[in-house]
Formats: sequence, C-alpha cells, structure tokens
Amino acid sequence: MKRINLDHISSQPLLPEVKAVMIAAIEKDHHNPSSQHQEGEAAAAALEKAREQTARLINAASPKEVVFTSGGTESVNHAIKGAALANMERGKHIITTNIEHNAVIRSIRRLKSQGFNVTSLSVDSTGRVNPQDVANAINDETILISVMHSNNETGTLQPVAEIAKIAREKKILFHTDAVDSVGTVPIDVQKLGVDLLSFASNTFYGPTGVGGLYIKRGTRIWPLLEGGVQEGNKRAGAENLIGIIGMGKAAELAFLDMDKRLDYLTRLKNMLIQDFPRYIDEYLVNTHPEYSLPNLFSVSIKYIEGESVMLMLDDDGIAISTRSACATGSLRASHVLMSLGLSHADAQGTLVISFGIDNTESDMTAFLESLQKTVNTLRDISPLYKKTVQSNH
Amino acid sequence: MKRINLDHISSQPLLPEVKAVMIAAIEKDHHNPSSQHQEGEAAAAALEKAREQTARLINAASPKEVVFTSGGTESVNHAIKGAALANMERGKHIITTNIEHNAVIRSIRRLKSQGFNVTSLSVDSTGRVNPQDVANAINDETILISVMHSNNETGTLQPVAEIAKIAREKKILFHTDAVDSVGTVPIDVQKLGVDLLSFASNTFYGPTGVGGLYIKRGTRIWPLLEGGVQEGNKRAGAENLIGIIGMGKAAELAFLDMDKRLDYLTRLKNMLIQDFPRYIDEYLVNTHPEYSLPNLFSVSIKYIEGESVMLMLDDDGIAISTRSACATGSLRASHVLMSLGLSHADAQGTLVISFGIDNTESDMTAFLESLQKTVNTLRDISPLYKKTVQSNH
Repeated sequence: MKRINLDHISSQPLLPEVKAVMIAAIEKDHHNPSSQHQEGEAAAAALEKAREQTARLINAASPKEVVFTSGGTESVNHAIKGAALANMERGKHIITTNIEHNAVIRSIRRLKSQGFNVTSLSVDSTGRVNPQDVANAINDETILISVMHSNNETGTLQPVAEIAKIAREKKILFHTDAVDSVGTVPIDVQKLGVDLLSFASNTFYGPTGVGGLYIKRGTRIWPLLEGGVQEGNKRAGAENLIGIIGMGKAAELAFLDMDKRLDYLTRLKNMLIQDFPRYIDEYLVNTHPEYSLPNLFSVSIKYIEGESVMLMLDDDGIAISTRSACATGSLRASHVLMSLGLSHADAQGTLVISFGIDNTESDMTAFLESLQKTVNTLRDISPLYKKTVQSNH
Repeated sequence: MKRINLDHISSQPLLPEVKAVMIAAIEKDHHNPSSQHQEGEAAAAALEKAREQTARLINAASPKEVVFTSGGTESVNHAIKGAALANMERGKHIITTNIEHNAVIRSIRRLKSQGFNVTSLSVDSTGRVNPQDVANAINDETILISVMHSNNETGTLQPVAEIAKIAREKKILFHTDAVDSVGTVPIDVQKLGVDLLSFASNTFYGPTGVGGLYIKRGTRIWPLLEGGVQEGNKRAGAENLIGIIGMGKAAELAFLDMDKRLDYLTRLKNMLIQDFPRYIDEYLVNTHPEYSLPNLFSVSIKYIEGESVMLMLDDDGIAISTRSACATGSLRASHVLMSLGLSHADAQGTLVISFGIDNTESDMTAFLESLQKTVNTLRDISPLYKKTVQSNH
C-alpha cells in the first residue's frame, strides 16, 4: 500500500538529485578537507562549493558567514549559548518568546542556571509576537534577543525583520531560529537584518543531521564545538562531508525552485483549508490565516485526542503528527498551543498536517476521508462529545 | 596514477560494506526516528541496531550508554564541558596532559576562562604520562581527569586503565579521548574503568562527521546540545541516521576483524620500522616502541622541513601528513612534539605516516623510495645539513 507522508515537519524525503550527489560522494570517498595534499584539496573544494550553494539560499553577503553544523539543534545551541557567553560582560539579560522550539528554550534555561535573566514574551491568540513587546522588554543589560522565524507546530511566521530592526537600533544581537523556514519560504539574511540565523538541511529535502548557522561578519560569539581550525575557527571537528554535499545540492534546488514550490504548496494548503469543513465540524485553526508557512496546517479537533487520530490514520497508511517530533514521549500538552490560549482539552485534539512537493491533491483527499471516518469513530465513543451534542439539542 | 594514502589519521576510506549500507539508507529514505507512526518506528529500529553494533565494539554494559554525536570533537566537548559544569559545585579543578588533542585543550581552556583551575601534566621522552603524576596532582577540588587513550601525532598509548583506577578510588570522573584508538586497538570500557570515552567513526573506516560518547550509567553530565528528547535526553537534535547506520556497520566489522587487522597493520608497521634506516639516516622515532597504535609511525628527520617533504611526496602520488589535520594552517610547532622534548628544528622535520588495511607492503616500499629521493634533494640544498656534515668529517 502506498503510504502518504503528511508529517513533513518531522522528516522530508531526500530529493533524487540530493540522493545522487550523496551517493556519488560516498563512492568518491573524499579525504579530509583540512589536509594539504591533493586529496585534501579536492575535499576542500567540494566543501566550499556546498558552502556557496547554501549561502546563496539565505543570501549571505559571503559564504564565510555560513558555518556548517550537525543540524538545527546544534545551530541554535551554538547561536544562543555562544552569543550569550561571549557578550556577558556587557550584560546578562536575554529576551525570547513562549513559543520557541525546545532547542531555544533549553539553551536559554541552561544560561539562566548560569546567572542570566530571561524575559519570555507571550504571543497573541494568532500566535504572533508583538514587536512593541520586544522593544518594551529591552533594558540596559539586554545582550541577546531570540525569536523564531516560523513555529514548527502552528506554521505561524513571526515579524522577524521588525524585531531585528529594534535589536539593531539598540545594538543587541538578534538570533532567529529559522529551521522550519529556510528553504520553504524566501529568506534573505541581509534584508531580515539578523546577526544569527539557524537552519537545517532536512527542511528543504536534504539529509537529516546537517544544518548551518549564519553568523554575520563581526558577530562576537564563542564556538560550541572547540578543537581544530575547521570552519574558520568557528566550529571544530572533521566535517560530515557527505551530508554537507547533500545539503549544498538541496539548497541549490530550493533556491532555484522556490517560486514553483511556493505556488504548489500554497495550492495544496488552500485546498485543505477549503475542504476541511466539508469533512469535519467543530475544530479550531491554529495556523495564522496570512502569516504562515505554505506547507503546514494545524487544527485542534474538539472532543477527540490527536494521539488516537494519529494512530488510526497510521493504520490507514497516513503519517501525521500531533506535535514536534522532538517532544515525542512527553505527556505534557504542547507549550506552543497552551501559549495560544487553547484549553488543555483542545490542545490534546491537535493535529499538525505538514506536506511537501511530493504530496498530491489526492493525498489531501485521502487524508480528509480517512480523518472524517476516524473522527466519527472516536466521537461516537466519546462521553464528552455525546454530552455536548445532547445539550445542544 | 594510483595514489597511496599514508595519511589515514586524517581520513580513512569507507569500507565497501559501509558504503553499501549508507547507499541503501539513502535509497530507503528513513523517516524521523522520534516519530510514532510506522515510518518513525522503522527509523528508530535502524538507529538502535547501529547503537548495539557500536556498543559492542567498546563493550559497553548497555547500548544506552552510547550517545551518537557529530564526531570526536563533539564527543570531547560534551564530555569535558558537560562533566565539569555538571559537577562544579563539588570543585573546579581538572587534571589533563600536555599532549591532548586541541578538542580537549580548547574545551578545558574555555572552562579555565569560566573559573576552573587546571593541572596539565607533562609526558616523559617516550610520550607517556606517569600515573603517579596524576595521583599527585589530585586535590580536594578535583572533579575531572582527562587523559587521551592514544596520541594522534605519535601513536603512543597512555596507561589509561591505571589512571582510571586512581580516579575511581578518589571518586573523580575520568574521561579518555579514544578517537584514534576505538576500532584500531581493542577497547573495553568496562575493563578500562572509564566514565566517559570519546570516539569517532572515521577511525574505523566509517563516515566522517559521526562519532559517539560513552557515558557510563549514572554519570552526572550536562548535555552539550539541548532541545529535543533524542538520545535518552543526553543529546538533542534530529539524528544523522545515514551516517550512524554507516558507523554501526563499520563498528560491527571492526569488532569482527580486530585480530586480523591488528596482525596485518603490525606487520606493515614492523616492515616500515625495520626498512626505514636502509633509506634514511639521522632521524628520531617519536612513536613508543611498545605502547603504540599499530597503524601510525612518527619520525622526525633531521635537517629538513616536514612540510616540504609532504608537498614533494604529494607530487609523487603519496599522501602523508606532518601533524594533526585539525591543526593545519597553524604555523606553530606541534605542542605534542615539543612536549616530548624535541627541538623546534627537529619538530619541523616530523612526518606522521599512518596507514590502514587498504595499504600494502609495496605502498611502504614506494613511500620509502620516494622519501629517500625527497630527503636527499632537500638536504642537498640545506645549508644546515652541509655545515653539520662538513663538521663531522
């Protein structure tokens, strides 16, 4: 049976072109890019080609501003801990939001245990941060602001450029976790005006466990991984060259196909939003109607548990998720959904439907049909649903 | 022309079996191991298989004691910074040696800037640390000892089990950087009695940019990468599953073929040591005659510069190195060689010849012939050599 992947936020398939360059890299068996003999120089050339491809995707002023990492989590840890610790003599206050990914939350929590003070801003009911709240939170001790570019559970885009402008005026470093945005929506680090930007290859159909950190030239930051002189002394360790070559190719294709992919994904998303009420009633939409990723739709369906829906759809051959894969196994309700003001019950009924260029309109229809069946079954055995339905009649 | 790789310490080729499983993993296109649907579970099974293969190579009591990382450098940074910061309320003194890899040196230097005190022990002229020196350096504030298992520039093995015993008796955490040992010589973490052990996949013909950290059950340590719940909450971030699958296969083969490889490499090394004086005179051997890796031979050839030899051999189709690839570009003499008591001039004439199971006896002979020609050429134009030779006659 053909399986349908509507859990792209957890894992995107590799593009055929990405597979091809990775397999070629495995067969070529590159030497160490830091070595000075011919084999080393050939490997270094492959590494720098991937850096140029990646820098172009985010429009870095120079490829040197892109540091390769082992993924979004390393990039975020590096950005936040590295920037905070390198600048702590100027102050120990950090501003962030309540809806960040756990990589941001836990990095900042670690700094808190080391004497930093943190202001964590709430979002409005659409899931957006108000730039004015950021401006109001700044004090003389503020050295770092970290606000995500898009949220991985709701898909909502944040007003990053506006916040970056406020930070720049106050000479405060600004980091954005753009892990779910880079490669999916156009990102221009120069236009955004950020100092630090984290991203991951698997968001744009590259391999998992590979990512990058944009570090604007002149930004004061400590390395997270220290040792050798790789990555311009910004990130030590022998490079995952096979993965990096894969990311480079994926970045090149994401850059070239950006408009085409945006159009296609937006069409799928609009179809889903439009068709949804024909299959399901009584649900809340968590995704911002205007400022949101083209490939993610989050809904909270009343009177059911998302976890049960996920398992029943899985039996029907459809993969979806209820929240960030990074938080799997946690029994607590999502901090992101609670921040939107959802009740605990509604948060538990949340589904994150994330799709990609490999999905089709018929995938969406198959999903909606299966979802309708599943929700009806679950509601039939839900005492809460019966009670509510009865009281409404 | 067939190139000869005698720079295995910088890069080992991938084994055909490793290439095959990595290519299969690329083609299979695994989902996220943290996801709970069927695709996620299949990926999680592949991840855990690799963990078992890797745990077996180092004889960990449980696969759960193996945490996958992005390589030796991350493992070392995690071990040292994570253990020191998690235990600093017990004291802020660390013991290490003068011959560690830069990953250890720079991680400890970073801690020094955060208020830790460090005792760095010297080695004897054979490059070994005296366990008694470690015992003598311990004070009430000592919380961590880090001594490498084998040195990447000389190949000399350290008395790790003896030092670990001393640490254990004093209830001090012990870490060993075994990046150049695991997969090359038998390593049994339980017999060694270490709490933390760093290793890297490319040492045993697996992919670069993948490694592991052995964390003995119950060891108090902070994660370096924080965020999601991956790796038993010890290392966040979506896994480099393709690379990890490659490391698992490489670990399995290293375990199965350990004796065979040891025999073969020892034979190549003995041949090199025995034949060397027939081709070259006036050199110092930096590798310990008894306690050393089977695949590395370090010599300092008098009156020449290692860098020039490396470049001339490169033209002859032979890759060697003069020092750690991680320190390439640095103009300073190797801290390891200076610690052995070498003069600056002798240190500059050092060659690190490192080989593997893909090398043959004829590679060794071709190398020695090319080296003889190169050294003669360089000495002919060396004023220092002429002056010394003249004064000897």
